[in-house]
Amino acid sequence: MPAPVRISLDAMGGDNGANVVVPGAALALERHPEMRFLMAGDEAAVRPLLEAHPRLAAATELRHAEITIGMDEKPSQAVRTGRWKSSMWKAIQAVRDGEADAAVSAGNTGALMAMSKICLKTMAHVERPAIAAIWPTVRGESIVLDVGASIGADAPHLVDMAIMGAAMARIIFDLPQPTVGLLNVGTEEIKGIEIVREANRMLRETPIPGLAYHGFVEGDDLGRGTVDVVVTEGFTGNIALKTAEGTAKQIAAYLRAAMNRTWRARLGYLLARDAFDALRDKMDPRKVNGGVFLGLEGVVVKSHGGTDALGFASAIDMAYDMAQHQLMRTIRDMLGETSADASP
Amino acid sequence: MPAPVRISLDAMGGDNGANVVVPGAALALERHPEMRFLMAGDEAAVRPLLEAHPRLAAATELRHAEITIGMDEKPSQAVRTGRWKSSMWKAIQAVRDGEADAAVSAGNTGALMAMSKICLKTMAHVERPAIAAIWPTVRGESIVLDVGASIGADAPHLVDMAIMGAAMARIIFDLPQPTVGLLNVGTEEIKGIEIVREANRMLRETPIPGLAYHGFVEGDDLGRGTVDVVVTEGFTGNIALKTAEGTAKQIAAYLRAAMNRTWRARLGYLLARDAFDALRDKMDPRKVNGGVFLGLEGVVVKSHGGTDALGFASAIDMAYDMAQHQLMRTIRDMLGETSADASP
Repeated sequence: MPAPVRISLDAMGGDNGANVVVPGAALALERHPEMRFLMAGDEAAVRPLLEAHPRLAAATELRHAEITIGMDEKPSQAVRTGRWKSSMWKAIQAVRDGEADAAVSAGNTGALMAMSKICLKTMAHVERPAIAAIWPTVRGESIVLDVGASIGADAPHLVDMAIMGAAMARIIFDLPQPTVGLLNVGTEEIKGIEIVREANRMLRETPIPGLAYHGFVEGDDLGRGTVDVVVTEGFTGNIALKTAEGTAKQIAAYLRAAMNRTWRARLGYLLARDAFDALRDKMDPRKVNGGVFLGLEGVVVKSHGGTDALGFASAIDMAYDMAQHQLMRTIRDMLGETSADASP
Repeated sequence: MPAPVRISLDAMGGDNGANVVVPGAALALERHPEMRFLMAGDEAAVRPLLEAHPRLAAATELRHAEITIGMDEKPSQAVRTGRWKSSMWKAIQAVRDGEADAAVSAGNTGALMAMSKICLKTMAHVERPAIAAIWPTVRGESIVLDVGASIGADAPHLVDMAIMGAAMARIIFDLPQPTVGLLNVGTEEIKGIEIVREANRMLRETPIPGLAYHGFVEGDDLGRGTVDVVVTEGFTGNIALKTAEGTAKQIAAYLRAAMNRTWRARLGYLLARDAFDALRDKMDPRKVNGGVFLGLEGVVVKSHGGTDALGFASAIDMAYDMAQHQLMRTIRDMLGETSADASP
């Protein structure tokens, strides 16, 4: 029997801290009863919440942390005050020290990335870490990276991201050879900015085992699910992600308004309620909550700061999958094969 | 009484050429009966279509053009073969020669921009032209630029775009002081890429008359309508636009599937049909069809290549508004005031 997956949690991270983290962990434990947790946080705040979930309490080691990183703290500031002592740092450090297989935090993204880089270090052969998001599509789901860590990434970094995203797709979609596209403003070779064209040349010229390079994709290919993995630099990726979230909210608002306009529409809404619930479920951002930090010497998953217990449980599930299926080894293998191929 | 607005049309542009352009012009003429058209295109193809619309025929001068630019031609290629002789060039040239107040084409965007730059020239004080799109929001509509012309724009160009976008907003939204935001990955001053931060400093330090600078906005502010004008570089703007279009299509597909799942849902759909029609109408991309080229010595409007007569008529409406309300003069005035303010 394999060893149980151990997840370290920043019990204080997110808008609601332990009030979401503890019940979220309890939900995740129901799905994977063999999981073990290490929670870092203010003992006085977390202990009473844990006591309400006896099974979770039995599966959890609580480690006191005197400092909580604020949601608006600058990364540099967070590192100064929170290194060693904060719940966020302690959750990451548990991964570094081999006490946990993955860490999850709903805290401040910039601080989490800064601390993860310092504590875990960037992988050999990887220029900069990236954040990968799950993107719902009409075909199912895709992985999109980077959604905000690598502002101003260059071509070799885009190639790293292609490899890391493919490794993640192999695990969560169980595909031997995921398709990978580069986000651009057109599909012809001459289109776009130079770094994207250069990454395209690199991916065409050196085929990477375990990755089927598709070429350029455009913004509307994201929702279409044209490829399993979409690679883009962090500035554009972040804006694309938030634009899609904003558009979904906008259409939901239009739909609510339309269904309230007349009594016929309201009656129709009542009759079609199950269908609307299914639609809401499909669009529920909590179900795909969890940005995975790729390119670090350890697995760190970022949950949305404003999520609830269900959303936080999804982020834990994501960390569980990554740890269970050995994301780190898959990335190392793929990077290793590529480096070996590239050097004579 | 003011002189009638004269619009020149590339009668051959778009996936369906004159079959869409001619009925589209007929629709636009119904709304603005005093409009006059100059159509450039293959006489043998356009004349018979015109004859089906006697009122339009009476308001139109048809000018033969022996060449039609292909939708997939590279801009350089299009300029080589189509200069002077193509329907696209002739439509633009009519603006340059003062025969028309604005040009509209549903042809290849790259070719249209390349020819417009050569034929009309870029405005003094403007580094590069931009393409402005109308973005539907929960509050109404915003202007987003650039959606694809200025790949790799720098900070002074973003400032130009802020001014040109505000000029356009003053006209189409009839606002004395439109709000303008810079698209970024966060709202704090330290976030994002250097060119965006530099443009932010420039806009903060030198207030521009007729423009209320808001600061940074994020991807989800687009659908929210946080500001009247959103400014971004062309690569990111194009990806944001297509991502939003793709997300809207994706949700429409989910909705269709949900409404077909059960008989209750289908019945509910029938009852709420008017509401769904209103929603479809709200999301109809044809109603906001028309990217406006800003920063040229003349008004050029790009229609979607795949649009129908209704969509093409919207693009003509847009050109009409820009010409009628003197877009060029508004931009020149705003640029002039800014240059005057900047120099002692």
